[in-house]
Amino acid sequence: MAQAGRFEQLWSAIVDIGRDPTTGGYRRFAWTEPDLKMREWFADECASRGLDLIEDRMGNQWAWWGDPDIDASGGIVTGSHLDSVPDGGAFDGPLGVVSALAAIDILRASGIEPHRAIGVVNFVDEEGARFGVSCIGSRVITGALSPERALALRDTDDVTMAEAMRAAGRQPEQLGADPEAVGRIGSFIELHIEQGRGLIDLGRAVAIGNRIWAHGRWRIEIPGEANHAGTTRLSDRQDAVIGCARAVLAARAAAEVHGSLATVGKISIQPGGVNAIARSATAWLDARAASEPALRATVAQIAEQVAASDAVLTEESRTPQTALDNDLVARLAGLLDDAPVMSTGAGHDAGILANAGVPAAMIFVRNPTGVSHSPAEWAEPDDCRAGVAALATVLTDLAGSEQ
Amino acid sequence: MAQAGRFEQLWSAIVDIGRDPTTGGYRRFAWTEPDLKMREWFADECASRGLDLIEDRMGNQWAWWGDPDIDASGGIVTGSHLDSVPDGGAFDGPLGVVSALAAIDILRASGIEPHRAIGVVNFVDEEGARFGVSCIGSRVITGALSPERALALRDTDDVTMAEAMRAAGRQPEQLGADPEAVGRIGSFIELHIEQGRGLIDLGRAVAIGNRIWAHGRWRIEIPGEANHAGTTRLSDRQDAVIGCARAVLAARAAAEVHGSLATVGKISIQPGGVNAIARSATAWLDARAASEPALRATVAQIAEQVAASDAVLTEESRTPQTALDNDLVARLAGLLDDAPVMSTGAGHDAGILANAGVPAAMIFVRNPTGVSHSPAEWAEPDDCRAGVAALATVLTDLAGSEQ
Repeated sequence: MAQAGRFEQLWSAIVDIGRDPTTGGYRRFAWTEPDLKMREWFADECASRGLDLIEDRMGNQWAWWGDPDIDASGGIVTGSHLDSVPDGGAFDGPLGVVSALAAIDILRASGIEPHRAIGVVNFVDEEGARFGVSCIGSRVITGALSPERALALRDTDDVTMAEAMRAAGRQPEQLGADPEAVGRIGSFIELHIEQGRGLIDLGRAVAIGNRIWAHGRWRIEIPGEANHAGTTRLSDRQDAVIGCARAVLAARAAAEVHGSLATVGKISIQPGGVNAIARSATAWLDARAASEPALRATVAQIAEQVAASDAVLTEESRTPQTALDNDLVARLAGLLDDAPVMSTGAGHDAGILANAGVPAAMIFVRNPTGVSHSPAEWAEPDDCRAGVAALATVLTDLAGSEQ
Repeated sequence: MAQAGRFEQLWSAIVDIGRDPTTGGYRRFAWTEPDLKMREWFADECASRGLDLIEDRMGNQWAWWGDPDIDASGGIVTGSHLDSVPDGGAFDGPLGVVSALAAIDILRASGIEPHRAIGVVNFVDEEGARFGVSCIGSRVITGALSPERALALRDTDDVTMAEAMRAAGRQPEQLGADPEAVGRIGSFIELHIEQGRGLIDLGRAVAIGNRIWAHGRWRIEIPGEANHAGTTRLSDRQDAVIGCARAVLAARAAAEVHGSLATVGKISIQPGGVNAIARSATAWLDARAASEPALRATVAQIAEQVAASDAVLTEESRTPQTALDNDLVARLAGLLDDAPVMSTGAGHDAGILANAGVPAAMIFVRNPTGVSHSPAEWAEPDDCRAGVAALATVLTDLAGSEQ
C-alpha cells in the first residue's frame, strides 16, 4: 500500500481547469463553466472505474463501489469538493477528491474486496464564493439550509442560484433535503490540505482533524447619502465608505480582544464612483472562534461598534463549534501511526454532516507554505502520497475486507 | 427674452436615456450605449436647427451657428457634457447642453442675428466615470492629456479606452491635441447645476462661477498576502483590507486638518472572497482644496500615513487651482443683475479650457437639495428658465447683434 495509485495522472488532468493565467489562481465557481468541467471530469473518472454515479437532490455527485443500500448503516464515504474561492489554490477541495479516487485504485490494485460499500463524493459549492453561503451542497441535503433560501441567493451579477442552476442545465425545483442520500453515509472521512502551519511545526505529513471552530458570515450594511465629492462640506456628509472603514477596523479589534478571528475580504460600494460620496456600502464579515461564547462576544462587539455608523449586521450563515466523531478520530489515530490530532478554523462539509449526526473525521495533509485560498497553497508530492496511503488504510479498515 | 424656448421639450426627450429604473439615477458612461444615444440626440437637435455639427480629434461635438473661422478670435461657445457618474443626477452636464440649445431658440425667436459665430459643445467623458480620469474631452484637445495615456486607460472590465472607442465605431488612432478646435473658442460660458448649497443660502436662482479649486485623483495601492480567513493567526496576517480602511480614515483626517476635501468613493479588493484575506486593495482618492498649498499638504499627509501599511499613492490626474477669466466674470456680473459670484470644488471642462488660455466663465443654477452626483440632484423649472434666460442674455451681448 506504499504506492499512490494514479494520483499524478488524475492531478494533471485538472490542473488547468479554471486557472487564471495571470494570477495562477483558480476560479471554479458553482455552476460556471470550470465547475461543470470539473464535474464532468469526476463523472468520467468514476465511469472508467465502474463506480455507480448518482446525484442527490442538490446535485452533489456520489460514486459508489458496491451498493450502500444493502447495509442499513450505509457505506464508508470519502471525498471533498471541486469548487474554489476566487484565485484559490489547487489543493483546497480537489486534493480530497483526487486522493479518494487514488485510494480506491490502491485498494483494487491490492485485491481488496470491501465488505461495505465505499463512496466518493463531490460536494457542490463548498466555498460559497459565488452566492456567499458556504457548504451549500451539504447544508441543503441535511436540511440545514432550506431550498427556498438557497435558490434565492444572488451572486454579484444579481443572478439567483435558481437562475444559475437553470443556465447550467439543472432543474432547481428538484432541490431539497435528501435524507436518503444522507442515510447512505455510514461514516465520512474528508481528506483536505491543511490551511495553517500546524504540520510544519510538528514535522509530520498527515494529521487527523477532530474539531471545527464555530464560524459564520455576516453582512454589514452601512448607509450613507450620495453626494458630490468635490462640493459637499465634510460636516454635511454621511459617507458610507467612512462607516465601512470603521467596521473593518472594529472587526479586527474585536478579534484581538476575544482571541478569535474576524476578517472582511469583500466590500461593495454604491454607486462606486471616484468623485461620488457613497450612498451605501456592504462589508462581509467572516468570524471564527474556538468556542461559541468567544464567537458570540466577537460578533456582538462588532455589531455594537458599527451601530455608531447606523450600520446593521445581519447573519448570513453560522455553523456552531463542531466536534467530529470521537470514536472515529480515535480509530484513525490508532491506524495512522499516532498521527497528531488537531482542530481547524476552516469550515468543511465534514462539519455540516457531523452536525446532522453523521460520524465524521478528517485527514489533513501538510501545506509547506501554511498559506491557503491563494495560488501559494501547496503540498509536496511525497506528502500527497502519504495522504492517499493514509486514506487507503482507513478505508480498508472501516469497510472491512477480504484479501 | 422671458420665455425659455423649447427647454421642456428638449428635456423630456432625454430624461429616460441611461436611467436605472431601480435607483432613478443615470449611468451614461463614455462610449456606452446610453452615451451614444445622447450624442445622437444632440446631433439630431443641432441638425433640426441647421447648426453645422463637427467633431474634433477627440470626438467632442461642436455645433456652430455661423462660421467661427471667419473671425480670427473665434466664436462664442457654450455647452457642457452629456455623460454621468454612476447613478448620477439628471442635471449635471445635460442642463448646460439643453440650456444652450434653448438659449439659441430664444435668440432666434427674438430675431437676433449675432455678429460672431455661436457654438454649442458636448464634451466627451467629463466625469471620468469609466476610465478614472475626468474631463478627457477637453484635456486631450488642449494637450493636457497625451493620446497615448488616454487610450491606454482601462475601465473596471479591463477594457482600454482605445478598445471602447473602437467598439463604439470610432477611430482611436485619430485622437490627439486639436489646436484648431481650441482656437475657434473665443470665449466659453458653461452653464451648470450648482453642486452645493450656495444659492440656497443666498436665495438666488443664478450665480456666476469665477474659480475652480485645485483638485485631483490619486490611486492608493495597498499590498497584502492572500490567505485563508479561517486559519491564519492575526499576527501572521498582512491583510490589504485593513490597510485600505486605514487609508480611508487617513484621508478624512487630513482633509479636516487642512480645511480641504478628501473622499474615497471607489475601492477594489483582490481576490474579493468572503473567506479570503485580501492580497491587495486599491482605493481611489479624490482630493480638493481652495489653494494649491492646502491640496499639496492634504495629499502629503495621506501619503505619509498610508506608507505605514506599505501602501503607495500615485497621482492619476491633477488640475491646479483655476481662476476663470476676470474680465468675462465682471461682464457677466454686469449683465445678470449683479448675480452672486462663487468658486466651486467641482472640476469642469471650463477649467481645463481656462488653463489652456481660453477666456472662460460659468453660470450656476440653484439646486434646492444641495445634492449632486445623486438622483436627488434637482433644479426647479423656474430656475432652469432663469438659467436659460441668463445664458441668452450673455450670448447676445458677447456675440454682438443686430435686431
